Amino acid sequence: MELIDKLSVKNSRKLLLLLLDGLGGVPFDGKTELEKARTPNLDLLAEKSVLGLTDPVASGITPGSGPAHLALFGYDPIKYEIGRGILEALGVGLDVTYKDIAVRGNFSTVDDKGLVVDRRAGRISTEENKRICSILQKNINKIEDVDVIIHPGKEHRFVVLFRGDELYPEVLETDPQKVGSLPIECWAVNKKSEKTARIVREFIKSAKVLLKTPANMVLLRGFAKYPTMPTMKERFKLSPACIATYPMYKGLARLVGMDILECGQTIRDELDTLKNNWNNFDFFYLHIKKIDSLGEDGDFDGKVRIIEEVDSIMPAVLLLEPDVIVITGDHSTPAILKSHSWHPNPLLLYSDFIISDAFKTFTERNCARGGLGRFPSLDVMSLMLANGLKLKKYGA
Amino acid sequence: MELIDKLSVKNSRKLLLLLLDGLGGVPFDGKTELEKARTPNLDLLAEKSVLGLTDPVASGITPGSGPAHLALFGYDPIKYEIGRGILEALGVGLDVTYKDIAVRGNFSTVDDKGLVVDRRAGRISTEENKRICSILQKNINKIEDVDVIIHPGKEHRFVVLFRGDELYPEVLETDPQKVGSLPIECWAVNKKSEKTARIVREFIKSAKVLLKTPANMVLLRGFAKYPTMPTMKERFKLSPACIATYPMYKGLARLVGMDILECGQTIRDELDTLKNNWNNFDFFYLHIKKIDSLGEDGDFDGKVRIIEEVDSIMPAVLLLEPDVIVITGDHSTPAILKSHSWHPNPLLLYSDFIISDAFKTFTERNCARGGLGRFPSLDVMSLMLANGLKLKKYGA
Repeated sequence: MELIDKLSVKNSRKLLLLLLDGLGGVPFDGKTELEKARTPNLDLLAEKSVLGLTDPVASGITPGSGPAHLALFGYDPIKYEIGRGILEALGVGLDVTYKDIAVRGNFSTVDDKGLVVDRRAGRISTEENKRICSILQKNINKIEDVDVIIHPGKEHRFVVLFRGDELYPEVLETDPQKVGSLPIECWAVNKKSEKTARIVREFIKSAKVLLKTPANMVLLRGFAKYPTMPTMKERFKLSPACIATYPMYKGLARLVGMDILECGQTIRDELDTLKNNWNNFDFFYLHIKKIDSLGEDGDFDGKVRIIEEVDSIMPAVLLLEPDVIVITGDHSTPAILKSHSWHPNPLLLYSDFIISDAFKTFTERNCARGGLGRFPSLDVMSLMLANGLKLKKYGA
Repeated sequence: MELIDKLSVKNSRKLLLLLLDGLGGVPFDGKTELEKARTPNLDLLAEKSVLGLTDPVASGITPGSGPAHLALFGYDPIKYEIGRGILEALGVGLDVTYKDIAVRGNFSTVDDKGLVVDRRAGRISTEENKRICSILQKNINKIEDVDVIIHPGKEHRFVVLFRGDELYPEVLETDPQKVGSLPIECWAVNKKSEKTARIVREFIKSAKVLLKTPANMVLLRGFAKYPTMPTMKERFKLSPACIATYPMYKGLARLVGMDILECGQTIRDELDTLKNNWNNFDFFYLHIKKIDSLGEDGDFDGKVRIIEEVDSIMPAVLLLEPDVIVITGDHSTPAILKSHSWHPNPLLLYSDFIISDAFKTFTERNCARGGLGRFPSLDVMSLMLANGLKLKKYGA
């Protein structure tokens, strides 16, 4: 990839990455979600485009949102790992800094001997979670010179940020991952992480005093620091913008240096944001979340409906005349699996310089026969840059 | 690739790499150059062949001729870099040796303060260039114990070879790459390159005295040494021959140890050379330049015409009964882009041991659906060797 960085040049051509989260599916009654959806506008575009399939990480690997997105942004998902704590913090919308250790927490239940009897405290309600977190935050906001920031997630989940100097994440996770065991003591695995371990032990001790059954213990894991990455501007000479409705995707975009645009919660809102900012950037990442959400819910028809809703905004998107359009998923989320999957992503590439496939529909099966073949998601960025004439020649 | 080297064996089967420089295109009025061309003979062969697409360096990367050729010869284009000076020297037909530092020069214009006002000296004529180079050569042929060899290129371009002992190329390029600046002084960036820098500074000083406005200065860049590479004979046990009309391609072939065959300037001449030498070698690299040249000129119909001319020699080529034939480009040169491009190369592989696709035409779109799929150009050599039964089994 360093090659791309060296060859990239600035010009005024505009690139649009329309990312339909969890787009790819698996047939139910013979058709995938994308095949079932009525998508006249996407189909019309597909006919003038070249299609292909991408693997986010490797064949057979089901990726999380972090690696799947990084790959599409042109960052090797094996090289740039995003720790669990960081992803959770981005997911609840916390502003993470380079001074933070981010941690994923569970409220849990221990018996009178301290043994874990329920790792999720009976899945307490999100409301109850918020109440407990606010008590913890009120009583614990600083340990030594370290700020403690506590944020509730859904049900039994929460996030803690430990913000201070000289904090490193190499400490033991306290979640024993099974019932009947004691929580693991948080010890440092190297010298420089000893301060973190000490602060964490103090945090757990203070929390225990404040907590009541069933949520009478915290289990912590996914200790992670905010990763340092070169920005898309530094690497690709792009001026990139993110249009997304969910915090985690804004956080991922911020990691690679995108400007995060103000935006409402609907797909129409996202379209408006795109239109209003069209003149100010040369790369747009527009993220549609609900396709994935409904796939995760196992709601086949719901997923179909959202794909159709995206189709309905395509004429307005095309009126902006992007020089390069890629429409794809970060990973597949087949409704019948109710989860992310390893299936490659259908991908459509449109520019003035492609050899069109002339397929009449945008579907997984046509993408499998498309002119781009099957390739790593990591190559999507170089393809977009090339089609935007933003890469110089390599070698003489 | 070292695997291939270890497994290769000598036999009498003959391999033909018919390299149509810049073959791949992009549609204009719906058809690429290759689709537009009437190629009954290529099409007939395609029907009995297996097709595919190759990437010379990586997805989205537009390669120069150097890396694009090396990959097809089975040499990793990232590992074996050919410096600009070397390629230019090969391009003008200079016999480069391992004692040379090769440099690309521009005649340019500086004002009375020494500031560059035209990096190309108003693009002086090639005739004028030859006249100036001959004056320089007459007056400067040795500096210290280093021979200086000066050769004109087209318009303002020339090549210098500094030939001597203890010369290394890590010195500053003197071309400031913009007008209004002083030329950069040639200093060494490491200890061992100090002799080179000293010789180059002396060369520039001497040249300046001899030069007159508008071509009153030289700007030097692309300092490079002749790369050391194992030969195709050493690596693949081949006895390889090059048939080409342009100096650069003969130079590239010589780099990997091919015999350079005497040849006239037309495609028919190249065919004759192939026929006359058919019994003497087991690998033939036959290079057709003009497809690329006309693509670079933006001459769509001209490119189509040359493809058709190549088609016309195919019956005679097939009469030689090569055991393995690959027909492909080194890189694409779409006429609408007037330059090399990142598009993959259409490729046709014929041997007794392929599973034919039965496509009726040899086109980019059929290659995209071909049985070979999409793969790196670097794998072409192992495919040719395998189809020539020149690779032993790996492992027991």
